[in-house]
Amino acid sequence: MGEWDLVDFLRQRAPSGARVPIGIGDDTALVRCSDQGALVTVDMLMDGVHFCLDQTRPERVGAKALGVNLSDIAAMGGSPDAAFVALCLPRQSFDSLARPLMEGLINAAGEFGVVVAGGDTNTWEGPLVISVTVMGTPHTRGPVRRSGAQSGDFIFVTGNLGDSLGGRHLDFTPRVREVKAILDRVPLTAMIDLSDGLATDLRHILAASGVAGVLDRDHIPLAPGLNNLSREDALKRALTDGEDFELCFTLAPAAAQDLLRNNPIAIPLTPIGRIIPGAGLHWGHDSSPLEEIAWVGYQHI
Amino acid sequence: MGEWDLVDFLRQRAPSGARVPIGIGDDTALVRCSDQGALVTVDMLMDGVHFCLDQTRPERVGAKALGVNLSDIAAMGGSPDAAFVALCLPRQSFDSLARPLMEGLINAAGEFGVVVAGGDTNTWEGPLVISVTVMGTPHTRGPVRRSGAQSGDFIFVTGNLGDSLGGRHLDFTPRVREVKAILDRVPLTAMIDLSDGLATDLRHILAASGVAGVLDRDHIPLAPGLNNLSREDALKRALTDGEDFELCFTLAPAAAQDLLRNNPIAIPLTPIGRIIPGAGLHWGHDSSPLEEIAWVGYQHI
Repeated sequence: MGEWDLVDFLRQRAPSGARVPIGIGDDTALVRCSDQGALVTVDMLMDGVHFCLDQTRPERVGAKALGVNLSDIAAMGGSPDAAFVALCLPRQSFDSLARPLMEGLINAAGEFGVVVAGGDTNTWEGPLVISVTVMGTPHTRGPVRRSGAQSGDFIFVTGNLGDSLGGRHLDFTPRVREVKAILDRVPLTAMIDLSDGLATDLRHILAASGVAGVLDRDHIPLAPGLNNLSREDALKRALTDGEDFELCFTLAPAAAQDLLRNNPIAIPLTPIGRIIPGAGLHWGHDSSPLEEIAWVGYQHI
Repeated sequence: MGEWDLVDFLRQRAPSGARVPIGIGDDTALVRCSDQGALVTVDMLMDGVHFCLDQTRPERVGAKALGVNLSDIAAMGGSPDAAFVALCLPRQSFDSLARPLMEGLINAAGEFGVVVAGGDTNTWEGPLVISVTVMGTPHTRGPVRRSGAQSGDFIFVTGNLGDSLGGRHLDFTPRVREVKAILDRVPLTAMIDLSDGLATDLRHILAASGVAGVLDRDHIPLAPGLNNLSREDALKRALTDGEDFELCFTLAPAAAQDLLRNNPIAIPLTPIGRIIPGAGLHWGHDSSPLEEIAWVGYQHI
């Protein structure tokens, strides 16, 4: 299967849709956008760094490469529309790799209504590299940025934390549907997805918003896979595991109460702390910080 | 310089603009689009395949990685707006590579008014891989696709062909300004950029449009670098050299005459042949095919 066969495969199999009047087969695609504009994100995954092809089926790699981007779109409060896939495929395994990789990606795209609108395929002697760009539409409330957290806000997370090393990093559900249901009900002030660990990612919200955070040790929702660890070790995993792909967001107290009374999604929504004036991330209760949290999450470089 | 320093570098140095109200520093960017939508393209370049870092300054690699995408936007008749850059950097040369690579890209972006709106930076033990996604705005006449060539149309190319191996592939000007000037004057029926060689790229137009092409051997504009070759060898280079990054387009006879009388750009515009009914690419004169052209351009895989 040469490059043009892969293009043909994609043209026949990739989901299409009205948002992409020109897809695979021209020099560029044409993607329609809302009046607000398009949310755009790109993530590159490499064999041996973000996955290990000798331990992972290519279908899951393709699904992950799309999913990490869908999680970014969700973290801005948006819905994904179109994906573009750039590949370096190892020449010697092209035949066995290209098709299942793209099938995994295409199936994940279909699940979330995403059009595979274009890409670039290359081969080389090196390991697999896959870079996916996803475009999406903001919620009608507008994009939710990192910089809007206000003193007094509640800090929430979706789902449970700390199971990335247990396999979640290859088997997560980007919170696209959940964020729509949440924003349909209440406005959020800031949001990020947990790709580098809560301790690192929440600090991005705090720094961008110019505020401090207080987390309650007793309220961090721990993944069942952490049950065999000590409470301290489990908490550390929950705050520093790299790839939970849950959402962390902040919202005003009245919105928080509304959301707690009427959880619009099928997974847990947990208030884990509060925003206060100042800087840094602290353990404490309600708005009272007790000690600075020393843990940090995953560092890319 | 770790990942966050590179992000800071980009945030300070990357060109910004009103089309990108949210750029580097959130989970996604927000890019405004025209009512027609956004043109979107992605190209991935690898060390040892598309460039050789031991022979090429990183600044030129950064400029090429953007330029190949600008050429794709130009080939649809559009103007580029925003770029997203995904990188795998070799860990041992991160310090010497990251900054000049991005400076080359940022300078090229500035030259064409492109906002560097986001990206993803990774390190590994492998060679440099750079994947750039560019979004653009179609000309008010609408996107120029590959599929619109009509029997009777003229086939034109911009500039001279065949000098890619002589160094053009690292030192080309994407025809962004030229295509705007051309479309401001006349409508085009089909277009492609010459990234795989005229023989291959023009065949994409012919296949997508369901027509045949006749090229006049005496009208192919040969790059000065081919002067020391025989006419036949020079023609072969002009038709099969991979990366000229000139534009090949088709247009109706009246538009062609207008363009020849009033060339609106500072480089040659050359009518090299005609579109006729049928299939395939032929040598001939005017609308009379004489023999099928056997040469093909660069094959990626």
